[in-house]
Amino acid sequence: MTEPTLFAESGFLRIRMDLAYDGTNYSGWSKQPDRRTIQSEVENALQKLTRTPVDTIVAGRTDAGVHATGQVIHVDIPDMENGPYAKKAEWNLADLPYRLNRILDEDIRVLKVGVAPVGFHARFSALRRHYEYKIVDSNRSILPLRRFDVAPWYRPLNIDLLNASSALLLGEHDFAAFCKFRAGGTTIRTLETFEWQRNADGHLVAKIVADAFCYSMVRNLVGAVVCVADGRFPIQWVKDVLSNRVRISDSLVFPSRGLTFVQVDYPSDDQLLARIETTLRRRNEED
Amino acid sequence: MTEPTLFAESGFLRIRMDLAYDGTNYSGWSKQPDRRTIQSEVENALQKLTRTPVDTIVAGRTDAGVHATGQVIHVDIPDMENGPYAKKAEWNLADLPYRLNRILDEDIRVLKVGVAPVGFHARFSALRRHYEYKIVDSNRSILPLRRFDVAPWYRPLNIDLLNASSALLLGEHDFAAFCKFRAGGTTIRTLETFEWQRNADGHLVAKIVADAFCYSMVRNLVGAVVCVADGRFPIQWVKDVLSNRVRISDSLVFPSRGLTFVQVDYPSDDQLLARIETTLRRRNEED
Repeated sequence: MTEPTLFAESGFLRIRMDLAYDGTNYSGWSKQPDRRTIQSEVENALQKLTRTPVDTIVAGRTDAGVHATGQVIHVDIPDMENGPYAKKAEWNLADLPYRLNRILDEDIRVLKVGVAPVGFHARFSALRRHYEYKIVDSNRSILPLRRFDVAPWYRPLNIDLLNASSALLLGEHDFAAFCKFRAGGTTIRTLETFEWQRNADGHLVAKIVADAFCYSMVRNLVGAVVCVADGRFPIQWVKDVLSNRVRISDSLVFPSRGLTFVQVDYPSDDQLLARIETTLRRRNEED
Repeated sequence: MTEPTLFAESGFLRIRMDLAYDGTNYSGWSKQPDRRTIQSEVENALQKLTRTPVDTIVAGRTDAGVHATGQVIHVDIPDMENGPYAKKAEWNLADLPYRLNRILDEDIRVLKVGVAPVGFHARFSALRRHYEYKIVDSNRSILPLRRFDVAPWYRPLNIDLLNASSALLLGEHDFAAFCKFRAGGTTIRTLETFEWQRNADGHLVAKIVADAFCYSMVRNLVGAVVCVADGRFPIQWVKDVLSNRVRISDSLVFPSRGLTFVQVDYPSDDQLLARIETTLRRRNEED
């Protein structure tokens, strides 16, 4: 594993950017050859303005079709105020959201840009990630203007069963049964929140918070508790899946469409570097 | 003017259908040659199921790009229970929303279908129509997942001025200054509600209710009060526009994108026929 770059190089400034996107028409966050991804759109826009190649680091590498209302990235860009790049650009940091949004399509918006505090690393300084998953059950019609971030389910779902089975998964566990296999990554995670409510539109909304998630984990968690709420399995079944006594089928992965990355938490500025160390130590032990 | 068909022909049943749509990709409600419209999509879907030509009548003929969450139509379809068409179809009325939604794209949804009460005419029995208009002011970013039914405005808008100027337009007036000219239609309308609030997302939302609206009237009303809230004109200016002492410029028509048809009210079943008479008498007097 490569060590993260902790500080911007001389002449560069590390900035934090908060983003929102509708993932419907993108192949996820991460750059891929010949695919339209959020990362490539954002980096192209930044490169147009800075006239410098840039590499963004993201808090949550969302899959194809997954949305975000509170994504966070960092990127090192030429420092306009000091050093060799100073005064070369016709823009300043305060202008950046407006200028980037003029370049980007309307399904990606830069919400905020600021100088990152020392030790800020969008991915490794993060304490926890917050996701939301929305379902319309009972085969009810999805209002057309609300259709992009909601997944349909044909039968009624019992919210008490959703909540009871979700609660059984809280805490630190090896979530391997809920993760697609990827070499060299830990699947031990701490699930801090997994709760369901019905919102004003009657949609079932799950709040799902963990220190980090592995690939397809949220959508598998949702699939598992829906199997319980749908009446297929008893509540205890999710515990059996967790302890790997039952293997969860791929058909239970819920679609990306209902999934939104809503928030990422960071420690106070003086704890940022310590948090990077903790994250990396944990990864190395288990890799 | 042709008289409305008050009752379904023998062997046919008049049904009321409640619809929602994202108007972004449609040239409005009304059928037009070589254009994709909501009406043609809905009628094609109905014709596929009923194997009979149908003519829908709508409560609010929304323009290109305008949305609906509570549109109402009526349509006379072959009666499956009685008469010559009975038992010919493999579906019944209760199935209709599900079957139509399987044919329609996801940006049009049939919410409800039922047998219309005697004297029901989606357009002429209506008492009043409710619209909503949403604006994001101060050049703030529009969240990508909420972008389809919100119009952007670059400067901050004062909500007190929006409400004060909107209130001056309430009541029965000749709204000709706010309507695009169309031969043979009255422009006398009763504006019952025109109020602004900020919602949880910080969007300005107008509730606009009248007995009926003429072409482009809502978007012109919004344009006029925005001119006041933006500081261009004093509050009293909207009264001058109304009394035609100032001609409102076309540039003040706000975009369709922010406009949604949310509700239509009908009288109790025993008042439906009387309401049709009132509507038609009024139209004839003034046409």
